[in-house]
Amino acid sequence: MKAGKGLDISVIIGLVVGFGGIVVGYILEGGSVAALFSMSAVIIILGGTSGALITSFSIKEFVSIPRILGDAMAPANSPSAELAGQIVDLSDKARKEGLLSLDDMVDDIEDPLFRKGIRMVVDGVDPDEIEKLLETDIAIYEFVKKEEAEVFNAMGGYFPTMGIIGTVTGLVLVLGNLGGADMGRLGHSIAAAFIATLYGIGFANLFALPVAVKLKGKIKKEKLRMEMILTGVFAIHKGESPMLVKEKMLSYLEEEEQKLLEKGGGEE
Amino acid sequence: MKAGKGLDISVIIGLVVGFGGIVVGYILEGGSVAALFSMSAVIIILGGTSGALITSFSIKEFVSIPRILGDAMAPANSPSAELAGQIVDLSDKARKEGLLSLDDMVDDIEDPLFRKGIRMVVDGVDPDEIEKLLETDIAIYEFVKKEEAEVFNAMGGYFPTMGIIGTVTGLVLVLGNLGGADMGRLGHSIAAAFIATLYGIGFANLFALPVAVKLKGKIKKEKLRMEMILTGVFAIHKGESPMLVKEKMLSYLEEEEQKLLEKGGGEE
Amino acid sequence: MKAGKGLDISVIIGLVVGFGGIVVGYILEGGSVAALFSMSAVIIILGGTSGALITSFSIKEFVSIPRILGDAMAPANSPSAELAGQIVDLSDKARKEGLLSLDDMVDDIEDPLFRKGIRMVVDGVDPDEIEKLLETDIAIYEFVKKEEAEVFNAMGGYFPTMGIIGTVTGLVLVLGNLGGADMGRLGHSIAAAFIATLYGIGFANLFALPVAVKLKGKIKKEKLRMEMILTGVFAIHKGESPMLVKEKMLSYLEEEEQKLLEKGGGEE
Amino acid sequence: MKAGKGLDISVIIGLVVGFGGIVVGYILEGGSVAALFSMSAVIIILGGTSGALITSFSIKEFVSIPRILGDAMAPANSPSAELAGQIVDLSDKARKEGLLSLDDMVDDIEDPLFRKGIRMVVDGVDPDEIEKLLETDIAIYEFVKKEEAEVFNAMGGYFPTMGIIGTVTGLVLVLGNLGGADMGRLGHSIAAAFIATLYGIGFANLFALPVAVKLKGKIKKEKLRMEMILTGVFAIHKGESPMLVKEKMLSYLEEEEQKLLEKGGGEE
Amino acid sequence: MKAGKGLDISVIIGLVVGFGGIVVGYILEGGSVAALFSMSAVIIILGGTSGALITSFSIKEFVSIPRILGDAMAPANSPSAELAGQIVDLSDKARKEGLLSLDDMVDDIEDPLFRKGIRMVVDGVDPDEIEKLLETDIAIYEFVKKEEAEVFNAMGGYFPTMGIIGTVTGLVLVLGNLGGADMGRLGHSIAAAFIATLYGIGFANLFALPVAVKLKGKIKKEKLRMEMILTGVFAIHKGESPMLVKEKMLSYLEEEEQKLLEKGGGEE
Repeated sequence: MKAGKGLDISVIIGLVVGFGGIVVGYILEGGSVAALFSMSAVIIILGGTSGALITSFSIKEFVSIPRILGDAMAPANSPSAELAGQIVDLSDKARKEGLLSLDDMVDDIEDPLFRKGIRMVVDGVDPDEIEKLLETDIAIYEFVKKEEAEVFNAMGGYFPTMGIIGTVTGLVLVLGNLGGADMGRLGHSIAAAFIATLYGIGFANLFALPVAVKLKGKIKKEKLRMEMILTGVFAIHKGESPMLVKEKMLSYLEEEEQKLLEKGGGEE
Repeated sequence: MKAGKGLDISVIIGLVVGFGGIVVGYILEGGSVAALFSMSAVIIILGGTSGALITSFSIKEFVSIPRILGDAMAPANSPSAELAGQIVDLSDKARKEGLLSLDDMVDDIEDPLFRKGIRMVVDGVDPDEIEKLLETDIAIYEFVKKEEAEVFNAMGGYFPTMGIIGTVTGLVLVLGNLGGADMGRLGHSIAAAFIATLYGIGFANLFALPVAVKLKGKIKKEKLRMEMILTGVFAIHKGESPMLVKEKMLSYLEEEEQKLLEKGGGEE
Repeated sequence: MKAGKGLDISVIIGLVVGFGGIVVGYILEGGSVAALFSMSAVIIILGGTSGALITSFSIKEFVSIPRILGDAMAPANSPSAELAGQIVDLSDKARKEGLLSLDDMVDDIEDPLFRKGIRMVVDGVDPDEIEKLLETDIAIYEFVKKEEAEVFNAMGGYFPTMGIIGTVTGLVLVLGNLGGADMGRLGHSIAAAFIATLYGIGFANLFALPVAVKLKGKIKKEKLRMEMILTGVFAIHKGESPMLVKEKMLSYLEEEEQKLLEKGGGEE
Repeated sequence: MKAGKGLDISVIIGLVVGFGGIVVGYILEGGSVAALFSMSAVIIILGGTSGALITSFSIKEFVSIPRILGDAMAPANSPSAELAGQIVDLSDKARKEGLLSLDDMVDDIEDPLFRKGIRMVVDGVDPDEIEKLLETDIAIYEFVKKEEAEVFNAMGGYFPTMGIIGTVTGLVLVLGNLGGADMGRLGHSIAAAFIATLYGIGFANLFALPVAVKLKGKIKKEKLRMEMILTGVFAIHKGESPMLVKEKMLSYLEEEEQKLLEKGGGEE
Repeated sequence: MKAGKGLDISVIIGLVVGFGGIVVGYILEGGSVAALFSMSAVIIILGGTSGALITSFSIKEFVSIPRILGDAMAPANSPSAELAGQIVDLSDKARKEGLLSLDDMVDDIEDPLFRKGIRMVVDGVDPDEIEKLLETDIAIYEFVKKEEAEVFNAMGGYFPTMGIIGTVTGLVLVLGNLGGADMGRLGHSIAAAFIATLYGIGFANLFALPVAVKLKGKIKKEKLRMEMILTGVFAIHKGESPMLVKEKMLSYLEEEEQKLLEKGGGEE
């Protein structure tokens, strides 16, 4: 069961370590955390960035940001020994008992792309058509996911510029009241203006851009898994020897997963 | 009817939210909106950016900016269940009654690329030639639309630099009159100089760049739709089974549209 | 006649609007134009940028900058209804009277690539060789033109950095004489230092980069025209029906030109 | 033996020269090294960058940074005369005594990719399958290594922004206490704030980015070696003449290694 | 003889014009050249950049920087009428007297790639193998040369950041001694700090980046020459007519060289 795999908590740990480090360093310098909060900076930066994102994408994509963030925290679907073992097992069965023998196993396949591929193999669909269909699936998957990562990437671009806008409006305000102001009050106002820059750079580099990098990394791993499935489906269709299929699967796995496959599946 | 689909108002909402957020934050800090207006900054930034755009592209492309902006607000032509259903229906009819039976249906096809493709299929044009022709159409479409997005992208690059030019000319003015000026007046002048930076960054990041992102996103979706049509036209030409055609169409659709297709068209 | 097509004056209009807008805005703020002129800034920026360009490319390419600029002001050679009509006419003649009948028409073809292609078709050169030859011509054309655009692109990169160098040398001078200077004189000197930044950013964003964008846009359009010619030459060689050839040509044309072709050429 | 090749100490020398040069220049100006140390800046920069990296990648990848750094210090696996000679020798033996004669030599092959390829050649695996398998191995190798280089690249991006955050928090602190501060104390505080910028730019440009460049350079060289092996395996499989194989191997080698191969292996 | 072609002095002229222009402009402003020299800035910038380059590449590549610079000053090996004429001549001879007749001419061929290709043609090597071999040679050549250009590109990236480091360390020093300093001395110190920025930007934009652009331009031209050779070798092998070979060669030549070829070689 997928949910049983839990959560990739590195996003949360990263946010805690990042923001924590900055706050600890700031307190060590003798600063008070309360002085870092500015309601107007929050409004300018969140308002400006939200507006820029809604214009760039759409309201529908904007409100799906929390869902995309949730995806970033889900464990990556990388090529696994488990899936590789399943592919080797199916290739063994197909070779011994024929492709039709896979019919009653199709519905037990958890991965939707693998299930779809094997279903078509069993149904006798032309392998060229299977290839085109699965490749379209992979391309569309990549298209949709890259769009989602792009939302966070764009966010990481808009945050700092909104921070600069917040700081400049703050400075315009301070400079407009320069005559007759005492130094202490002036300093406080300029400090407040800089908070917006802090928010803009911080949100971009501790949150938006790292999440975008995370999402892009996951796309690459999931695409690798999909290519492993494609390779597996065609090997099964061609009735290749389980030895060769296993060798092919090993190519896609990281060292740890390779050991798992060597020990476990596909040999019985 | 296309016009019936209404407007993609996300561009307008985005602009309101973005500029609104910044103004609200600024007022909260105690600023007056009137102080943010500067005629000379407007002239420098709009004049400079217009000049740079006219040089970069042409007067013809420059005056088409409002039309391109209108395109950005039109709903995207993404792969739809409706079009997919139509493709499946045609494939069904072509298989049962032959390709020529499509002749009297051609003129009812709304999408020009799909109509052109089916027209050539019915006319018995060589499939390789159909492929080349439709692919040229897609390539030219992409070429023209990318040029249009490029106008807004370039605008997003010129705006901030014109803002810096406006601020530097303002500072040159202030610094030239430094001797004998009182602090209050000096502050006001420097503040006024910074307005140009504000305009440059704001127009770029709340308007020009988001619209460029929007246009690029629409190109990708419309290209996907065109590839769906290409796939459909060839499947119809080859007389593939409606089941397989439907499977192919499903690959191009998002989840919601997939459900629409499953319920609706192409099966009767 | 090509010269008869006149000049693409958008580059000149763009420069006037751009520099004009900035000067008008500056005067509106109360500045005097004379204060914006600085001989030393001109020398630093033009000298530095010229040096960087000569090192980057060569003296030969550096002295050809005015010629490249002239090219940027020449009207683009985009796919035209006129050329498309000529291609359709030739395909019609070739089909009716044979390829050799084109022999006495070759020298009347204005476009050198089209003339070369048809010349080889008439001479009976192997179509694969024609394809390779014309494609090499297109690739070399693109190579040379991209190099030329690259000169202006590099110029747009060097201008602002030379501006910063001019400003920093100015500031070094001011700061070295800080002791005992009165505020008025100090302000004037700092203002003068900033003029270099103004020149650097202005020349780059109003002149060099827009011209580079212009040149790149022209390359894309001229390449499209060349691809149209390639398609036409092969269609003529294969003796395709003028209807199909016309359909192919229409794909390359913008809407207006499409209407021109529909009305005019290739049908008589 | 690989370990016998020692260490690529250029990373260490580079770090010593880089940081050393800056410290020497600073001391020459009259600065004291102690004034460059700031605990709070260290915490902000290391904390912030660590957080951003953990979010971007994962805890597992974050803790493998020292191991990746170790890899950057290992000598590159570039195409070598030694390996080329071995390939030429095997091609000679295969041609004279048949492919099966390589069987007892396979286990002596040190390079895992070469061993795998020859093993499959001896086992009579279909050459197309061998090609696909080895190419997958190369692609996965490149994928994993590029991810590792990407960690240092991202680090080089986060370091300077954390430096700016550190400096801005420092300035916020200084500005908040502006009233009633004496100039001497003020100067010290601002100086301290700038240390964070120094750390951010320094760590990025002397450590993170150079290591990323190093890792990318090694990937390219190791990929070249892998392509040399691929070429060799297929030449051996096809039974090409050792002369031709040697010629092919020479193409992959740098001048020095070419001389080594000319003198040494593959001719006996 | 290659050495007889002299030197491409544009790099030297470019450096003189660039640095000269800046110094002249600076003197015109009333500055003294001596004030622009700072030993500590030189140490920080050269030390820091050297360290970053050694870490990025290797000591071996670092010490080869003068040799790469020498290459940048050597005239480019672009496609020449001379080489084209030689190719046309050989094709003529091969067609008339057979491929073997080229045997005694091979050693007179100056260009190593052309000599290698013709040698293999004469030796009767399979054309597919010749193609693979020559293409590997071109790819490796490009790989090595791009690495060399990359060294200067990286240098152009590190210089300005080391300049900022030099300026910030200078400012840290100034700010640490703020209390009790007179304005004159303060100004001098800040001015000195900015010298490092000047060096960083100047070295990068007048030297490192232009040389990198130069090297990349030469790679493109030399690759074109190599492709011309490849085309020529295959035309000779296939025994194409000298007319067609000449036409092919003309495609690769610039206008001037085209005229040279038309007048001279390949026709006798």
